[in-house]
Amino acid sequence: MIRVTLLTDFGTADGYAAAMAGVIAEAAPEARIEPASHAIPQGDVLAAALALSRYARLYPEGTVHVVVVDPGVGTDRRALAARIDERFFVAPDNGVLTWVLRDAEDVELVDLAGVRRQGASDRSSTFHGRDVFAPAAGRLARGEALHTLGPPATAPILLELPEPTREPSGVAGEVIQVDRFGNLISNIPGEWLGGGAAPAATRESAGTEVRVDGRGVGPVLRTYGDVASGELLALVGSLGLLEVSVRDGSAADRLRGRRGTPITVSWPDPVRPAPTPRDRPPG
Amino acid sequence: MIRVTLLTDFGTADGYAAAMAGVIAEAAPEARIEPASHAIPQGDVLAAALALSRYARLYPEGTVHVVVVDPGVGTDRRALAARIDERFFVAPDNGVLTWVLRDAEDVELVDLAGVRRQGASDRSSTFHGRDVFAPAAGRLARGEALHTLGPPATAPILLELPEPTREPSGVAGEVIQVDRFGNLISNIPGEWLGGGAAPAATRESAGTEVRVDGRGVGPVLRTYGDVASGELLALVGSLGLLEVSVRDGSAADRLRGRRGTPITVSWPDPVRPAPTPRDRPPG
Amino acid sequence: MIRVTLLTDFGTADGYAAAMAGVIAEAAPEARIEPASHAIPQGDVLAAALALSRYARLYPEGTVHVVVVDPGVGTDRRALAARIDERFFVAPDNGVLTWVLRDAEDVELVDLAGVRRQGASDRSSTFHGRDVFAPAAGRLARGEALHTLGPPATAPILLELPEPTREPSGVAGEVIQVDRFGNLISNIPGEWLGGGAAPAATRESAGTEVRVDGRGVGPVLRTYGDVASGELLALVGSLGLLEVSVRDGSAADRLRGRRGTPITVSWPDPVRPAPTPRDRPPG
Repeated sequence: MIRVTLLTDFGTADGYAAAMAGVIAEAAPEARIEPASHAIPQGDVLAAALALSRYARLYPEGTVHVVVVDPGVGTDRRALAARIDERFFVAPDNGVLTWVLRDAEDVELVDLAGVRRQGASDRSSTFHGRDVFAPAAGRLARGEALHTLGPPATAPILLELPEPTREPSGVAGEVIQVDRFGNLISNIPGEWLGGGAAPAATRESAGTEVRVDGRGVGPVLRTYGDVASGELLALVGSLGLLEVSVRDGSAADRLRGRRGTPITVSWPDPVRPAPTPRDRPPG
Repeated sequence: MIRVTLLTDFGTADGYAAAMAGVIAEAAPEARIEPASHAIPQGDVLAAALALSRYARLYPEGTVHVVVVDPGVGTDRRALAARIDERFFVAPDNGVLTWVLRDAEDVELVDLAGVRRQGASDRSSTFHGRDVFAPAAGRLARGEALHTLGPPATAPILLELPEPTREPSGVAGEVIQVDRFGNLISNIPGEWLGGGAAPAATRESAGTEVRVDGRGVGPVLRTYGDVASGELLALVGSLGLLEVSVRDGSAADRLRGRRGTPITVSWPDPVRPAPTPRDRPPG
Repeated sequence: MIRVTLLTDFGTADGYAAAMAGVIAEAAPEARIEPASHAIPQGDVLAAALALSRYARLYPEGTVHVVVVDPGVGTDRRALAARIDERFFVAPDNGVLTWVLRDAEDVELVDLAGVRRQGASDRSSTFHGRDVFAPAAGRLARGEALHTLGPPATAPILLELPEPTREPSGVAGEVIQVDRFGNLISNIPGEWLGGGAAPAATRESAGTEVRVDGRGVGPVLRTYGDVASGELLALVGSLGLLEVSVRDGSAADRLRGRRGTPITVSWPDPVRPAPTPRDRPPG
């Protein structure tokens, strides 16, 4: 029972997303085709990469994850299929796999230059979702081996992400995503805030101060219930990254935060927690 | 063949909804996971409760309905799983099951305080959709008995809904929801308008007058075709409740109606229909 | 393994779409129910017809495609089920099948006047998606023969589409749809631009000029990579129709184009390509 998930910026109303599903269904009639999302902001590869990282590894082994957020369609960007540990991915080579590749132990990549839907002419050079990625996903979903889809590929493009920095007095990072709830998700890993589980972090973080573009929002708390409705708080969110939220509200609206807005954490001398040996964010 | 439906206010673009689906798929590989909606307005428990009531009982027996519209996540609100007649429900204890519980004959409830996704730390205290509700749904979907998920629970929270009132000369209620088409859905049950099937209601309702915030919209008709395009009409909608609509248009826009806007029905002396014995709206 | 796709303008938040899925699941527990889209603009039959044409034939034979974009619900418009070549369709008789019928070789139609969900009263005369179309789809999905759903029907309504015209010096058409990416999709078939595959068209189209409402956008190119980011281009899109796009942008915004905006193609004397014998657009 193979599942195939679809992540695109196509919306659904034009029928493009359903066209992809139809091609996969034709190739792999037994496959379960599930929309992860068709609502990625247009061409926003970073948003797609983050969304993918939230669910890719939660699906069963063998799942085929298809991502078509592809502002480079019709250029010479590569189309790739990959086995990353025990799951498959089909996507343009534009960095959308950055997070899942970061966490990977075993990666196998092939170039889909030779894959094309039966019946698709060169005219379909604007809709690789239907004519390249869906046929590749269909072949994987019906059990064809990855290496039969194309020659090996190397050096997939990785997004150059802003990296947070650590100093004795604190951490400096920035917002990398605003989610639907208006949470400001930073690139600062929760481990950098004192290590260990959240309750410990909460205790140890007494005296720390999180600031968004200079404005203080208090220490790192554990969850929304730690503040009253409508109040700002900082916490370590579901990706393991520092987030700033408003309980029952939008931190993005309140603080005018958006991708790139600076977020810092400072702790009081001399009780700052010892930094962990980990040197890069876990993604 | 177990189906699992998902109803959330997560949107899809952030990957949170797909994360839930992935956890369920991992636990119950054979389950069919279907998005009922991820577009509930943020934190709108009443909207979720009404939406759920529209489809919950139409699905086959054994279906697992998951609802995560959960403004109280991170507080001490309970997480519940329920068997309501022959279907299962997994949801926060915030009233989102109000309608399905109202109509229930046989209810079994358990508290999910002890359920947590394998590998989830306390840090995931902001994403119970992934770490509590999806694991519970997955266990039900693979056939585990409800009582194995937690200790029995009682007294689920029910929404306090505005109740319509009846007087000899008519009925007074209010808008409880505006749907996508701009229909103003009231809390007035169709049975109160003269009982019996719609054609009878139509006949008997001659002379009745429906008013939205004092503005007359005519008698209760049977369907959109009873008026010209662009005209207002009142009818008994698909939930069995009095609705006010504009054919090919939006009554909400036309009448500036929204949740809480008064709707009344008056009938002429002396031919008002006999009220039915039923004393509360059917939901 | 029967798949059932759903195409509506219901949105998902009110639970109407899930109600349809539930009815189908109850009737055909083994069916795979996939949302093609619930985001068709309200009552936009042409948009639904175009979307449907993009995916209907890509799904496997035997698929049941349900379309409920139905501004005429509650009037005397017919409800239809159809076998069109090897796939099934369930839809109101309002032109939404125009494109799939245009391309059909073998069509069988029945009138669904006698189909009604068990338990549905006349009150449900506003929600035929749940009470007529979903039950019909469920019966087809569990293998009932089309002719058992109702008496034969003929003469389905077809949309009267604006037809492009050809003259010795060029072609005149108009925008029939703006897609999510802001592409202006015309009614001008790619074959009219010189025939043959796109590379040939590109070569032969040197000297041709596409104009949107009089404004020149250059020759017909092959794909987005043929221009720089932010530039306008004309190409033959995934439906085989002439489109005007902005690479990484929106032609609709740039040119204020919308449905009905004139698009022309002119070619220089004397090297215009020979028109093909085909006299109508392929849809």
